[in-house]
Amino acid sequence: MAKELKDLTKRADNYSQWYNELVIKADLAEQSAVRGCMVIKPYGYAIWEKMQHQLDTMFKETGVQNAYFPLLIPKSFLSKEADHVEGFAKECAVVTHYRLKNNPDGQGVVVDPEARLEEELIIRPTSETIIWNTYRNWINSYRDLPLLVNQWANVFRWEMRTRLFLRTAEFLWQEGHTAHATKEEAEAKAIEMLNVYADFAEKYMAVPVVKGVKTANERFAGALETYTIEAMMQDGKALQSGTSHFLGQNFAKAFDVKFINKENKLDYVWATSWGVSTRLMGALIMTHSDDNGLVLPPKLAPIQVVIVPIYRSQEQLDTINAKVAPIVEKLKKQGISVKYDNADNKRPGFKFADYELKGVPVRLVLGARDIENGTIEVMRRDTLEKETVSIEGIEGYVEKLLDDIQNNIYTKALNHRLEMTTKVDTWEDFKTQIEKGGFILAHWDGTTETEEKIKEETKATIRCIPLNGEEEEGKCIYTGKPSKRRVIFARNY
Amino acid sequence: MAKELKDLTKRADNYSQWYNELVIKADLAEQSAVRGCMVIKPYGYAIWEKMQHQLDTMFKETGVQNAYFPLLIPKSFLSKEADHVEGFAKECAVVTHYRLKNNPDGQGVVVDPEARLEEELIIRPTSETIIWNTYRNWINSYRDLPLLVNQWANVFRWEMRTRLFLRTAEFLWQEGHTAHATKEEAEAKAIEMLNVYADFAEKYMAVPVVKGVKTANERFAGALETYTIEAMMQDGKALQSGTSHFLGQNFAKAFDVKFINKENKLDYVWATSWGVSTRLMGALIMTHSDDNGLVLPPKLAPIQVVIVPIYRSQEQLDTINAKVAPIVEKLKKQGISVKYDNADNKRPGFKFADYELKGVPVRLVLGARDIENGTIEVMRRDTLEKETVSIEGIEGYVEKLLDDIQNNIYTKALNHRLEMTTKVDTWEDFKTQIEKGGFILAHWDGTTETEEKIKEETKATIRCIPLNGEEEEGKCIYTGKPSKRRVIFARNY
Repeated sequence: MAKELKDLTKRADNYSQWYNELVIKADLAEQSAVRGCMVIKPYGYAIWEKMQHQLDTMFKETGVQNAYFPLLIPKSFLSKEADHVEGFAKECAVVTHYRLKNNPDGQGVVVDPEARLEEELIIRPTSETIIWNTYRNWINSYRDLPLLVNQWANVFRWEMRTRLFLRTAEFLWQEGHTAHATKEEAEAKAIEMLNVYADFAEKYMAVPVVKGVKTANERFAGALETYTIEAMMQDGKALQSGTSHFLGQNFAKAFDVKFINKENKLDYVWATSWGVSTRLMGALIMTHSDDNGLVLPPKLAPIQVVIVPIYRSQEQLDTINAKVAPIVEKLKKQGISVKYDNADNKRPGFKFADYELKGVPVRLVLGARDIENGTIEVMRRDTLEKETVSIEGIEGYVEKLLDDIQNNIYTKALNHRLEMTTKVDTWEDFKTQIEKGGFILAHWDGTTETEEKIKEETKATIRCIPLNGEEEEGKCIYTGKPSKRRVIFARNY
Repeated sequence: MAKELKDLTKRADNYSQWYNELVIKADLAEQSAVRGCMVIKPYGYAIWEKMQHQLDTMFKETGVQNAYFPLLIPKSFLSKEADHVEGFAKECAVVTHYRLKNNPDGQGVVVDPEARLEEELIIRPTSETIIWNTYRNWINSYRDLPLLVNQWANVFRWEMRTRLFLRTAEFLWQEGHTAHATKEEAEAKAIEMLNVYADFAEKYMAVPVVKGVKTANERFAGALETYTIEAMMQDGKALQSGTSHFLGQNFAKAFDVKFINKENKLDYVWATSWGVSTRLMGALIMTHSDDNGLVLPPKLAPIQVVIVPIYRSQEQLDTINAKVAPIVEKLKKQGISVKYDNADNKRPGFKFADYELKGVPVRLVLGARDIENGTIEVMRRDTLEKETVSIEGIEGYVEKLLDDIQNNIYTKALNHRLEMTTKVDTWEDFKTQIEKGGFILAHWDGTTETEEKIKEETKATIRCIPLNGEEEEGKCIYTGKPSKRRVIFARNY
């Protein structure tokens, strides 16, 4: 592992390669035998579980309940919403048969041509269609509304170019699908869930995000409005980290979901959907980690504190073990996840490098001299700073330190984003600035045409129109046409 | 809802129909637009989540970690283990294409014939093949062992005849896959996980189970030994509720997974796999519920206590609300999930019937006279018994009552199984007894041939050879050949 660490590419040399290597070396995920599909390894999955648990708790606090809908969607459902099919039909896995049989030539198995499905089934790329087809039977009157349902599920989109966590054919996510009696309520729900995502990103992942609305061009296929949280990675590129869609009555109309409103009239139901995925793992890794490996926010670290003994004899180890036991117990009582690694088959230096690579926020080291002096060495992973402190009260010290680390990495990421965010007012400046990376706040004339030309020429996309952006008269950097507010341009993952 | 309840078929009239109706009426699940695939509705999913949470905790206590492996499996993987392919190739969903395109005739979308996969992919019916293909790269030496991994996932088996929860094409489950250095350790792990399943079934689901080993005929495809927990439903039929497999070195050999053992020699790795699924929901429903609806064990009930006010005026309701608030708070502090239903748009009778249908273990009713008398009415769902008790100390009373209910429904189910378990020694008696339902303990000559003949003639299968069965000399009920122990015969789901 120490060797593996030494081999980690430096961010400054090749950020993209650094990421790819880190995901593998830190045992988070790997490519599988199926093109574009990943295996999420236990350490990576443990982080994802912590994310899931926290998000699930936050969803439930807003009144959302979980449910489960089928993996497979009849092909015809996809076509019912015109924009939706354009967005998703191009990249989906199609089930055409329901049986294999022994190969007549004796080698392995082949598809049984007699077991062809009458209608092909699609592995869900997202579940609006099957869910709205179900909601038709669940909703009759305004008394059945709002319907606030989420599912944790795997989805599948045939991607040509994949990267672990960031873009994979199969990925894990949650998708919330809500139904409402009024437009206003649905719009408010879409914003509410965006705020949940932003809170989660900032308070738990320690990833600062910009909340905004997508341009028509970047909208979810079938939505009237797509809200997004956008994060900035260390290389200055944007990562879309979660989206919440106001779907209007599009899916209700496509699947004929009507309800009797309070005025006793039939109307179509209003909808939202919103999702975050294992892509968040990519955001987490790329925001905080460094050339020594992962840096994890304490609130999502599977192991928050590791304790390593340094000893030369069994007697010394026995003494250290006895000293550590009550510390472990107290830390656990405080709800801190702690690992005491006194395994004898690895040397301390190896352990140090391994836990650094894995991003354990706090490392405590206890040696014979510490026992004599009543001290303990504390290393914080975010800054790699070491200090020797009194072993008395170490539990309180550690608890505070974990908070400090959580806040410090958030602040560091926020400062990085602020430093890498630039207001630009001319096309020449834009072209220069975009090469430096980061977010560019610039005026845009509001047309898809201009947006696409800028993308063609610079690879920069409009990440969002910030929700908290101020009105400001200006001129589009590309066409010079009038604009009322700045939008965020960036290159993105 | 009250009307719906009245419509519930009685168990005595048609047990099977009673089950089908109950699953729908209690809002647990429903059929989807995709044949054989169910929608698990929020109330049903809430029970499943409680099961998942408890099982997951128990798995982790044994050192198991979660991970995630791909949904799709290359077709050729299935053929690598000879028995496995026989068991699973016949009923799988096959992905052959990766794209749809607009129908040239303008109607909807069609499969793009140019997007045919070189090798078809199978939606996992179970994941031994893809996981052991992955383990090859994870395991080099005995120091990498044991590897104790579980995944929570959806799987797909094309079933011709489906029933909600009991047998569906897609279902949710967990599948544990462990790798070991020795045969003994793997065998012990398979038994350990069987014991976890049995503990979960008995202590949380309140479903008594018989632990046993399957006959060769009923073994998992690819296993050397399949252990099972078998439960008896109210109609006397058996329901296989969880299985744990000792896989020997079969999958290690099929996927070439070798390790360097302590003697520095290369050897194949030993394996287990074990799983329980949403089928457990079927076991839960069918074991305890009655003609009034669900009966849920308190430990898995999403709502453990419901409080309903009875009032004639807003003033009375205000008084009751004030009285109930501290009770709700105290119950929550005790970790009890409680719902105070003072909604004004439904009458108490309607609420009573609904919560009975939904199996809420304890109902508290508070009216104006109770306020005067300092009393509260308590109804326990398992026996439907009502009593009026002092409102003082009701929180402690409820806590104890929940324990009582949990124990009572377990004991009731156990007594039912004991009453419906019969020792039979002749073929004539067997044929008579099997028509009455229940478990039959009988001698069997140990051959698959006899087992299949008995099944043909009586539809009874050998559910298991009980692990705690005593050795006893006897003669096979069918062939008269010698036998050393009784096995359990039953008809089954």
